[in-house]
Amino acid sequence: MYLLGIDVGTSGCKAAAFTPEGSMVALVQAEYAEYSPKTGWIELNVNEVWDKVKACTRSVVRTCSDRINAVALSVLGEAVLPVDRYGACLYPAITAYDAREQGYRALLQWWDEKLGPTRIYSITGVPLNSMPSVHKIQWIRDNLPEVYRRAWKFVCVEDFLIYKLTGETVISYPLAARTMMMDIRKKRWAHEILDLADLDEDKLSTPTQSGNVVGEVGSEAAEETGLATGTEVVAGGHDQSCAALGVGVTDEGPIMDSTGTVECIGVAVKEPVLTQQMLKAGHGWYCHTVKDRYLSLGFFPSAGIILRWYRDNFAEKEKELAAEEGRDVYDVLTDVASTSPPGAAKLLLLPHFVGSGTGKQPILNMNSRGAFVGLSVFHRKSDIIRAILEGITFELRQLIETFERCGVCISELRSIGGGAKSPFWLQLKADVTNKRIVAPNITEAATLGAALLAGIGAGAFKDCHEAVAKVYREKSVYQPNPANFTLYSKQYEVYKEVYPALVHVYEKLALL
Amino acid sequence: MYLLGIDVGTSGCKAAAFTPEGSMVALVQAEYAEYSPKTGWIELNVNEVWDKVKACTRSVVRTCSDRINAVALSVLGEAVLPVDRYGACLYPAITAYDAREQGYRALLQWWDEKLGPTRIYSITGVPLNSMPSVHKIQWIRDNLPEVYRRAWKFVCVEDFLIYKLTGETVISYPLAARTMMMDIRKKRWAHEILDLADLDEDKLSTPTQSGNVVGEVGSEAAEETGLATGTEVVAGGHDQSCAALGVGVTDEGPIMDSTGTVECIGVAVKEPVLTQQMLKAGHGWYCHTVKDRYLSLGFFPSAGIILRWYRDNFAEKEKELAAEEGRDVYDVLTDVASTSPPGAAKLLLLPHFVGSGTGKQPILNMNSRGAFVGLSVFHRKSDIIRAILEGITFELRQLIETFERCGVCISELRSIGGGAKSPFWLQLKADVTNKRIVAPNITEAATLGAALLAGIGAGAFKDCHEAVAKVYREKSVYQPNPANFTLYSKQYEVYKEVYPALVHVYEKLALL
Repeated sequence: MYLLGIDVGTSGCKAAAFTPEGSMVALVQAEYAEYSPKTGWIELNVNEVWDKVKACTRSVVRTCSDRINAVALSVLGEAVLPVDRYGACLYPAITAYDAREQGYRALLQWWDEKLGPTRIYSITGVPLNSMPSVHKIQWIRDNLPEVYRRAWKFVCVEDFLIYKLTGETVISYPLAARTMMMDIRKKRWAHEILDLADLDEDKLSTPTQSGNVVGEVGSEAAEETGLATGTEVVAGGHDQSCAALGVGVTDEGPIMDSTGTVECIGVAVKEPVLTQQMLKAGHGWYCHTVKDRYLSLGFFPSAGIILRWYRDNFAEKEKELAAEEGRDVYDVLTDVASTSPPGAAKLLLLPHFVGSGTGKQPILNMNSRGAFVGLSVFHRKSDIIRAILEGITFELRQLIETFERCGVCISELRSIGGGAKSPFWLQLKADVTNKRIVAPNITEAATLGAALLAGIGAGAFKDCHEAVAKVYREKSVYQPNPANFTLYSKQYEVYKEVYPALVHVYEKLALL
Repeated sequence: MYLLGIDVGTSGCKAAAFTPEGSMVALVQAEYAEYSPKTGWIELNVNEVWDKVKACTRSVVRTCSDRINAVALSVLGEAVLPVDRYGACLYPAITAYDAREQGYRALLQWWDEKLGPTRIYSITGVPLNSMPSVHKIQWIRDNLPEVYRRAWKFVCVEDFLIYKLTGETVISYPLAARTMMMDIRKKRWAHEILDLADLDEDKLSTPTQSGNVVGEVGSEAAEETGLATGTEVVAGGHDQSCAALGVGVTDEGPIMDSTGTVECIGVAVKEPVLTQQMLKAGHGWYCHTVKDRYLSLGFFPSAGIILRWYRDNFAEKEKELAAEEGRDVYDVLTDVASTSPPGAAKLLLLPHFVGSGTGKQPILNMNSRGAFVGLSVFHRKSDIIRAILEGITFELRQLIETFERCGVCISELRSIGGGAKSPFWLQLKADVTNKRIVAPNITEAATLGAALLAGIGAGAFKDCHEAVAKVYREKSVYQPNPANFTLYSKQYEVYKEVYPALVHVYEKLALL
């Protein structure tokens, strides 16, 4: 018995088969393009996505010696498209980061006036912003009336793919919650929102609990994917909620910490903390893949991308060395960083190279930029690289503290993504945050999370908690060094002043 | 007939012989050490300095086919030492940047209370600070009473060397003015200051106009230096005032702009502008080497040293390329910078890698540090290097504007030092400052200035104006590009906000 998890992101998809013990037996991935027909527009061609999902699945099925009993999807949120009653796509999926119409400014103002951010937050868990699907549907209504009229349903990428697999129109709670149209506590479409958006509920898929069986692979889909007809299709969830499940983040305490190009933390709780303080910090709450749990994501866009920037522009020598020694250039860079003392000789990095994230004021400030602050002629390359790692980690600490100030308990970080490959960085995270840092014994958290949900649907596990107990294992653990934590805490106090000091400079720089 | 100019700095000396037309016929240089017996102490061994001056002079004399008729010295300011009545050194010269006793804090406070900064400024032209010689003499009085008692005179390095050459104790006005003990308008020792410092005038050398003959080379000095007995020794001046003369800065209008490790501008006027505004900016006034003219220096310590920092830490590839092509690595770096657009793609550099200078508030802030502000993942190496050049040049513009706001007219910059070797940087200076930038046809401005003063003493020129008219020539001229000036002016407005934004961050960083 194998369980198939399929992770569908903005730039590619992965299909991975796992045993019910959590061992990965096959992994296939493929890339596809995002389209930007005009400045600020970001669209996905879902037919292309579906083609790549089919291709990956076929490859996985071919490699698997045993039967795949169930499949579930881990999917990017917010992206939405209109389909006709045969499930044919009428317009490309408009993605979360699409910023047409000056970032949907007029629509956001309309919602602000009609219902207000506090009410919207209390119903949907969403701090009013341009990402949710509802604005994209309203945009189609206002700008493409003919498409809107012909639309049978507006689906997210998950329900589009589920429809392709099963002919059912079902969406998981986590993905429904990211549309800004769901009442996250009542777990149904929010009529107050739908009425204002002038949208019939039957234009949307039916929300269901992650882990519920939603249908079976039909004969056409079976032929195209290589899956057996009748394979159970199970409600998966939003990619981050699947990844959080994959690293065993099912309850308050341990959190997911994903360090890739961007940094994202996932915090699970029993009851969403829908306070003004949380709203102001820009931290939404949505349904977790874990039953009766809610998840919040803290996020900043400028993490590993800065190391890549450094690598691409300044690491010629380190690249040569890495090539000679057959090592990863990032390993060489962290080796260099490790020769700088904790605190990088008082050098600070504000890591806003692509803007700021949540948890700071103002949130998601796309005008904010990076800054090295405190440079002296005594700083060496090692200090610069260490300051990059420390700056990203200070930003992470600030994100964590936002949640803690709102009463959320955070006991440890379970690190995944490229950043989790570096023991040096993991120890640095422990020392900066004063948290236990765990590198779990898995690399594909999102596909594993989806596979665990497939397993629940297929009866392999009673629930998420049992699934996690069976498969979650620690690979390595990093404990904070108290002396370093003390040192970093002093520097962190200064670090926190850099963004407020420069924010008005960045506003003016953006206007140049 | 040759004229000898000897430039004596903090880390080395140069002797150069010139024709009365300003052509350099010989140049010899030597290095010596600064000594730091305790943290913050910076001393010079003047016997070592004298040895090196003699060695350089001997070398120059050997190369000269014609007779050297006169010699004058261009000398570092402030450094002072006690000598006995045979001219023997009783204690090392304590230099301008010596910061013993927490930067002479108690003495500065004492002067502040006894006389006050405004009165001191109005008499001596010196904004109260730790550099002038008077504090060092007071320190010797308070801490080495036996040395003080035995001291026949307290001399600066100029009068020490003049004594060695001639047996006379004479100091030029410019160097006397940098002791904070001279009445710069009456051109004599200021009794109000000497009385407070409890110092007899006969413990000091006799001040005289630069260009006046002060004596002849004696037989012992003749033997040691190779100069003919009876060679006229002429009063030279403070090194910056000699360099300013060397580039023809004899009157208001054109200023000297020296870009080396540090940046220094020299502004000449007929009457010193001893206003509160000038005092607050930290700009002192002292006697120029040019008769009846005053000179002010604007200064910041973080200029070419930042390019050197970049070269030493990040320019491995450029160093290889420079070696291959037999070029200067700085030429390669400015070539790279030139591929970035004006404004370095909105990247700002605050060039305070070794602290801030004059003309900003607070002045001479040794806790200030450098900052790259506005970094995005789209910035390339070329933007970083261009931002370094632009940041230094913005700082220069701010320095210039301080003088202009006080009513000083600045018509053009005459650039010397390492920075003047780069046509790219000179054009950038023109575009940022909107001034005509001239690279004069000389490289050794300070020794030339001293040689011109020697020539006045020897009767080769009537005065400094005639000397400059005879020898000063432009090598190349850079006119501002109006479009670039407009662009830079907008960016400069944002640049000016960076230091005020970060200054409190730097105070806290310094305390870590």
